Amino acid sequence: MILINGVPGDSIPATDRGLLYGDGLFETIAVIAGAALNFDAHLSRLNLGCQRLGISVPGDNLLRHEASQVIGACPRGVLKIIFTRGGGGRGYRPDPELTPTRILMLQTAPDYPEENRVGGIIAGICHTRVVDQPELAGIKHLNRLPHVLARNERGQAECSESLMLDIHGRVQTGSMSNLFLLRGNTLVSPPLATIGVAGTVRQAILKIAPELGWKIVLEEMVLEDLYAADEVFLSNSLIGIWPLRALAGRALNVGKGSALLLKRLIHDGVVPP
Amino acid sequence: MILINGVPGDSIPATDRGLLYGDGLFETIAVIAGAALNFDAHLSRLNLGCQRLGISVPGDNLLRHEASQVIGACPRGVLKIIFTRGGGGRGYRPDPELTPTRILMLQTAPDYPEENRVGGIIAGICHTRVVDQPELAGIKHLNRLPHVLARNERGQAECSESLMLDIHGRVQTGSMSNLFLLRGNTLVSPPLATIGVAGTVRQAILKIAPELGWKIVLEEMVLEDLYAADEVFLSNSLIGIWPLRALAGRALNVGKGSALLLKRLIHDGVVPP
Repeated sequence: MILINGVPGDSIPATDRGLLYGDGLFETIAVIAGAALNFDAHLSRLNLGCQRLGISVPGDNLLRHEASQVIGACPRGVLKIIFTRGGGGRGYRPDPELTPTRILMLQTAPDYPEENRVGGIIAGICHTRVVDQPELAGIKHLNRLPHVLARNERGQAECSESLMLDIHGRVQTGSMSNLFLLRGNTLVSPPLATIGVAGTVRQAILKIAPELGWKIVLEEMVLEDLYAADEVFLSNSLIGIWPLRALAGRALNVGKGSALLLKRLIHDGVVPP
Repeated sequence: MILINGVPGDSIPATDRGLLYGDGLFETIAVIAGAALNFDAHLSRLNLGCQRLGISVPGDNLLRHEASQVIGACPRGVLKIIFTRGGGGRGYRPDPELTPTRILMLQTAPDYPEENRVGGIIAGICHTRVVDQPELAGIKHLNRLPHVLARNERGQAECSESLMLDIHGRVQTGSMSNLFLLRGNTLVSPPLATIGVAGTVRQAILKIAPELGWKIVLEEMVLEDLYAADEVFLSNSLIGIWPLRALAGRALNVGKGSALLLKRLIHDGVVPP
């Protein structure tokens, strides 16, 4: 089911700026037993994105209401929210009077193997770089071609996820996930100050980490740091946590830290069981 | 009038990857007396973009046929072509079996003051940076948020166009145009090897320049180079050539070179009279 500006439908005007320029935002939210997991964090990031792009913020209550309509009693799925600046006019400069377009759709949950969470995944390193852009950093906007190209590279389809480097060769992110490593009791993750997407699960992890006895260090990392780590893992709202058992052909250690963290995230209702 | 995959319509599925990820390309083409100006150059860039993104190339004859349907006998307008990877599936990795979405629409020509071409424009310098991305450089893809943010900055609405710098402080492009300066008989323009859009009019200018007695130098430039130049001007397929008479409050010289070039571009049918 899809709701477009509150009305059931399946299409948007071909003149919507979301299509013309990627002028909008989205959220991908796990649905379990009729509930959207970690919904507040997703709404909060959507609101931040609207402020950053200068788009009128949708009311949280309206989105909650429409989300419950779309989700219904769905036992397991994905709620996708797309919020664009709307349609009309010509040229990059947006008319301040535009009415944003609101799309909520329920999708089938991806059938990732449970083994990804337990035994870990094989990740690749892609050539497509993720770019520094302070104005767009952190928010989940609709300009996602680098991620599409990353996953479309030869050899990446065989990997469960692809790590993306910046132009300086620092590892910044998975194509659809945030990156962490454990070094003893220290949890390290890229700061993402001017690059990437600040994940909702990443935010939860940074809150939980001290309770697990982990010290948090947000610093840039290179591939050697990953190979030298005790554990490397990825997070997002659908996968939860995937430890890496291999990266670009080199074996990595799957430890107990990522399992402990996943258990806690499931317990807190942040990611699907 | 809008043709979507050859059929008159005005909407696209909300699940099209053009909307979800900006996974596609576009062209903006001037229409005069029922003809799309410089159409071959636009088709050629669209084909290059398809190859770079790994999208099936639309047939040139098909696009020509549909363009003539959409344009009809229109005396003056804009033909916009949008070509996306199509719809379906979930996640960044594209299904190789997707059928691309083809949108052709006729828009009203923008009513730029004729004085812009003659007396020149006031341009601003925006804070939003244009980013280096070799994989996307040159092609006209749908990820245009930086350009939207650039034109939406406070103070830029009062300017006819906004110049965009890269993170190193080099001037790379106008938000919707390519940048040139004349220094004596030398025409200088940023090389755009890893950044920006390679404009169809820019391409024509680089071909014409030697015939006007200009030596071409493609090199990076900073703002001081613009202030020190004999002439600075911008190009795109709708504006033709706009000389700069002021940049961020400093006066610039409007010389005869840009007028000569515009006359030639109009004569060659590259830009509208």
